[in-house]
Amino acid sequence: MMNTPSEALLTDLYQLTMLQGYFEQRMNETAVFEFFVRRLPPKRNFLIAAGLEQVLEFLEGFHFSEEDIAWLGTQKNFHPEFLEFLKDLRFTGDVDAMPEGTLVFANEPLIRITAPMPVAQFIETRLINLLQFQTMIASKAARSVLVAPGKGLAEFGLRRAHGAEAGLLAARACYIAGFTSTSNVLAGKKFGIPISGTMAHAFIQSHEVEEDAFLHFARSNRDNVVFLIDTYNTERGAEKVVKLAPQLKAEGIQIRGVRLDSGDMATLSKRVREILDRGGLQEVKILASGNIEEEELRRMLSAGAQIDGFGIGTRLATSWDFPYLECAYKLQEYDGRSTRKYSEGKVTWPGRKQVFRSLDSAGKMNGDTLALINEALPGEALIQPVMREGKRVQAKPACSEMREYCLHQLSRLPETLTQLEPTEYPVHISEGMNDLVARLERDRRS
Amino acid sequence: MMNTPSEALLTDLYQLTMLQGYFEQRMNETAVFEFFVRRLPPKRNFLIAAGLEQVLEFLEGFHFSEEDIAWLGTQKNFHPEFLEFLKDLRFTGDVDAMPEGTLVFANEPLIRITAPMPVAQFIETRLINLLQFQTMIASKAARSVLVAPGKGLAEFGLRRAHGAEAGLLAARACYIAGFTSTSNVLAGKKFGIPISGTMAHAFIQSHEVEEDAFLHFARSNRDNVVFLIDTYNTERGAEKVVKLAPQLKAEGIQIRGVRLDSGDMATLSKRVREILDRGGLQEVKILASGNIEEEELRRMLSAGAQIDGFGIGTRLATSWDFPYLECAYKLQEYDGRSTRKYSEGKVTWPGRKQVFRSLDSAGKMNGDTLALINEALPGEALIQPVMREGKRVQAKPACSEMREYCLHQLSRLPETLTQLEPTEYPVHISEGMNDLVARLERDRRS
Repeated sequence: MMNTPSEALLTDLYQLTMLQGYFEQRMNETAVFEFFVRRLPPKRNFLIAAGLEQVLEFLEGFHFSEEDIAWLGTQKNFHPEFLEFLKDLRFTGDVDAMPEGTLVFANEPLIRITAPMPVAQFIETRLINLLQFQTMIASKAARSVLVAPGKGLAEFGLRRAHGAEAGLLAARACYIAGFTSTSNVLAGKKFGIPISGTMAHAFIQSHEVEEDAFLHFARSNRDNVVFLIDTYNTERGAEKVVKLAPQLKAEGIQIRGVRLDSGDMATLSKRVREILDRGGLQEVKILASGNIEEEELRRMLSAGAQIDGFGIGTRLATSWDFPYLECAYKLQEYDGRSTRKYSEGKVTWPGRKQVFRSLDSAGKMNGDTLALINEALPGEALIQPVMREGKRVQAKPACSEMREYCLHQLSRLPETLTQLEPTEYPVHISEGMNDLVARLERDRRS
Repeated sequence: MMNTPSEALLTDLYQLTMLQGYFEQRMNETAVFEFFVRRLPPKRNFLIAAGLEQVLEFLEGFHFSEEDIAWLGTQKNFHPEFLEFLKDLRFTGDVDAMPEGTLVFANEPLIRITAPMPVAQFIETRLINLLQFQTMIASKAARSVLVAPGKGLAEFGLRRAHGAEAGLLAARACYIAGFTSTSNVLAGKKFGIPISGTMAHAFIQSHEVEEDAFLHFARSNRDNVVFLIDTYNTERGAEKVVKLAPQLKAEGIQIRGVRLDSGDMATLSKRVREILDRGGLQEVKILASGNIEEEELRRMLSAGAQIDGFGIGTRLATSWDFPYLECAYKLQEYDGRSTRKYSEGKVTWPGRKQVFRSLDSAGKMNGDTLALINEALPGEALIQPVMREGKRVQAKPACSEMREYCLHQLSRLPETLTQLEPTEYPVHISEGMNDLVARLERDRRS
């Protein structure tokens, strides 16, 4: 028995009470669960599937440690035979899923878990926790990617992300969706994402004279010279950069860029561009940060902002306009029997599903069909086998490969869906699915 | 040198480039930073300080591991002497802060860090990451606590919290703000929070007959029998509970409650209460969950909902109406010199601060004064010493003590601030602070 730190207790208590119920009733037959989003958030035309790799790592390492079990023993409610059973509980099921970076719509499963009921149910909480967050963030990030083609986009959200893991996984999700870098050093190390960053206002303020701060920073970071120029006055900051440039050049130091972080940045960027160009610094890039998200990005670009790269933080890493997905992990089948829930306002499509996507003659997506897995329909089948009996059946792709795949997916979006304004994409229901629904309705009434 | 896993790389790249700058310029004088919220979110009348304990743990354990340093060595930009310097870098400074559970308003510092510049700057990212999230969540949670006095409030947000740490710390912040329990098992284990939970729809659906699911669950969880009754039809679910009660009673099992999770729960709860009461189950509690937050809570209670306890999840654990705080960690002083930033729209109050809070004759808060630490003003001084030269000077309080303290704080709120509608609370500026601002303005113009 492993005794490495486990994530097993990172769950809702009801998963443990249900697990004891399944164990004691010997309900060990195969269950099929699917995770999907019921409705897209108001300002999303599509979602981007992300977070699968973390789910697979969770499933591979899934176990209760000795410490977990000892602690559960101190809580009333859990029985000795049940605690004994937990010692050997592992994930030994199958996983089918959309690759990370796939475009996905409401009601389309991102993942299917096929496993003995106890463990298939138990993994729900962490699986949702991992998939919903990254999918939400990647989906938000893609809007900036579509609005600002050719611009550098750096994810800057760690400080206001909701905790450490949110910061790390937000950086990952943004990169998969097409961002160019992150400020998050650990995310760079863990996921191989390019890292970027400049300096903070405090660095400037800790010097009595702004020019000294610029000089000191440049000499200590010769390969990464980007000056933050808005601490006192943005235009005067730009003029100081122009004055310092010859001295730095003489020291062999090349200024790469300046960063704006406040004020009307579209207007300021044009003035700063003029100042830099007049000073012979045409090659110095202008970067901008500060409460930016896709709508502000579009506004600045259409106002003719002379900005080469954007740092996008808080509003992206929190998905502030809608910080959660209306998603569910639903039992579709138990012991060969299709299940369906009828709670008010929460009726779902039954069965094990496949999603078929068709393209028009120009190679643009023109409709999906939500079908059952035993149907053979035209189009690309999006859900693929990724784990069988607890073992991976695909090599682990690098984040950079997922990013390429996602950018290719984005290039197939019909023009209307690339806009920030809401548009519906057609998701059809297959004949097989309609037949199954009709049969379940008849059974229910009888 | 320690080689335990470190959080040091969980930071923005610019912290490292600035750190190299401070190191190479030998800028090792004392810096004073304060963390505060610039503006409260639209629907908050106050905030509740939370997250200090995690900041202190971070500061106590702060170091770069050998692995961190080796990896940094593989990145261009970092110099060998700098990497050598990182080996022994520790937090050896002072911390002054408001205790967790303290009510706090815009511009009032939650924490002050007084330490050599390099480390005082470097800790910024993780410090904000820890303080802003828990403060935001505790502040949101307090609104439910004020709206539903005497009701059970369970935090249910793990699955849609933004990652693992968000789930854990949201549970902690809600408990400090006065919630009664969490569904999050690991949060219960780590922080000593009471845990609660029932069953999911899948447990019901995995049985062909709803009654069997109830029976099986009750027999396996005799001390925690709460039935989810909305899977097919809420009222019929309640009738089934009434029919099963005698059989369970004969087996020595007491039904504690039923849970509603969909539909118009205020109306349904009254019908369910009638059904249960008519069936002799007056002692069975009614719990409700599903997209609840403080406004829906108030609406249900004023509609006469017969609900004893609420499970509040997604919208709380994501603070969905405003998922971040406009907060900053600002340099107030370097090497004895007061610093102030003049970026457009971001002017801040300078100096090392204290907050004095005064009470009226009825013991209700009637105004704060933002002052300098050397001023002696009437009222309670909210900012206290918590760490000196890197060592704690206060015992670590239990979360339950913080919760008691917070509930006491909430009881001192003036009536208007206990409402969900926006009200301003007076925060005055002291004479000493106004003098300092005037002096800095004169120096700046000269």
